[in-house]
Amino acid sequence: MKEILFVTSNSHKVTEANMIGQLFGVSFSQVNLMYPEIRSDSVREVAQEGAKYAFEKLQRPIIVEDSGLYIESLNGFPGAYSGLVFKKIGFEGILKLMDGLDDRKAQFVSAVGYCDRDIIEVFEGVVDGHITLEPRGKSGFAYDPVFEPSGSKKTFAEDHKHKIEVSHRRKSIELLCHYLKSR
Amino acid sequence: MKEILFVTSNSHKVTEANMIGQLFGVSFSQVNLMYPEIRSDSVREVAQEGAKYAFEKLQRPIIVEDSGLYIESLNGFPGAYSGLVFKKIGFEGILKLMDGLDDRKAQFVSAVGYCDRDIIEVFEGVVDGHITLEPRGKSGFAYDPVFEPSGSKKTFAEDHKHKIEVSHRRKSIELLCHYLKSR
Repeated sequence: MKEILFVTSNSHKVTEANMIGQLFGVSFSQVNLMYPEIRSDSVREVAQEGAKYAFEKLQRPIIVEDSGLYIESLNGFPGAYSGLVFKKIGFEGILKLMDGLDDRKAQFVSAVGYCDRDIIEVFEGVVDGHITLEPRGKSGFAYDPVFEPSGSKKTFAEDHKHKIEVSHRRKSIELLCHYLKSR
Repeated sequence: MKEILFVTSNSHKVTEANMIGQLFGVSFSQVNLMYPEIRSDSVREVAQEGAKYAFEKLQRPIIVEDSGLYIESLNGFPGAYSGLVFKKIGFEGILKLMDGLDDRKAQFVSAVGYCDRDIIEVFEGVVDGHITLEPRGKSGFAYDPVFEPSGSKKTFAEDHKHKIEVSHRRKSIELLCHYLKSR
């Protein structure tokens, strides 16, 4: 069993990661450590810089994860600032900004930054979809009620099981686990 | 004459600072240096951390400046992320988010972080005003066409002279100059 520290304040992310990790012989333990999140529009860069910082502090194999919602007709807004924007204007703000827009394509992107003594790598998972006209569903969090993944008629907040199967975070964690298993 | 390095990629800021500085015997020289902008909703914190970083790199008295537009009915959005948000959704996005909102109160806040071998200080300037219903004026930049300072009937983009006299950045730079002169 490979043991990896998951630097996050969100225990749900760790639970989710362990569901995937157990299939690969990887176990994640939560560590609360504040790391500086650089101002970049790229979750990849945020994860990479965060991972470097966290490894320097902890000196053990670690991951950090950053994710964002990129809406095409809003030039990628809110992107890497999704969490911060959500706190201010919620998904209601997003719906208002998209009022009258026909192009509702959006992507959720998750980037996992991994760092150990030898290497730093970033693994990205993407899920395509679109922004609904109205919020639907109660599960999940943040923008889940207004995001419908491609090929589904339900939002992430209406079908949590489906979310867990296809989510951006599942994909990025799986890529990480494949990588760790292959080393 | 006190010489201070102004870490910024924006030469207009330096020109503006020198107009004020010359009244206090302070001269600012521009230095282009990327500094990590932390993810904080407070321009004060961003300026403080940026100043620390820049001094460590340059080992000379330096300032960095960060500013933001805080809109009351949007919970302070876009705040310390004003520049980034502007690049994505412009002031048009702000007007759309505020469609139908009666409370249009807003503040521009500027924070100047100063650091030398002995000390780190932050100076804040604030200008109160409100968000107009429509953009007006051509001068200035970013949110200037939709910001009308209290006591004026013109936006920052309609009356650039008035903007320079009352702006948040003028106030923060003045506070810095008073401080430097008193040391």
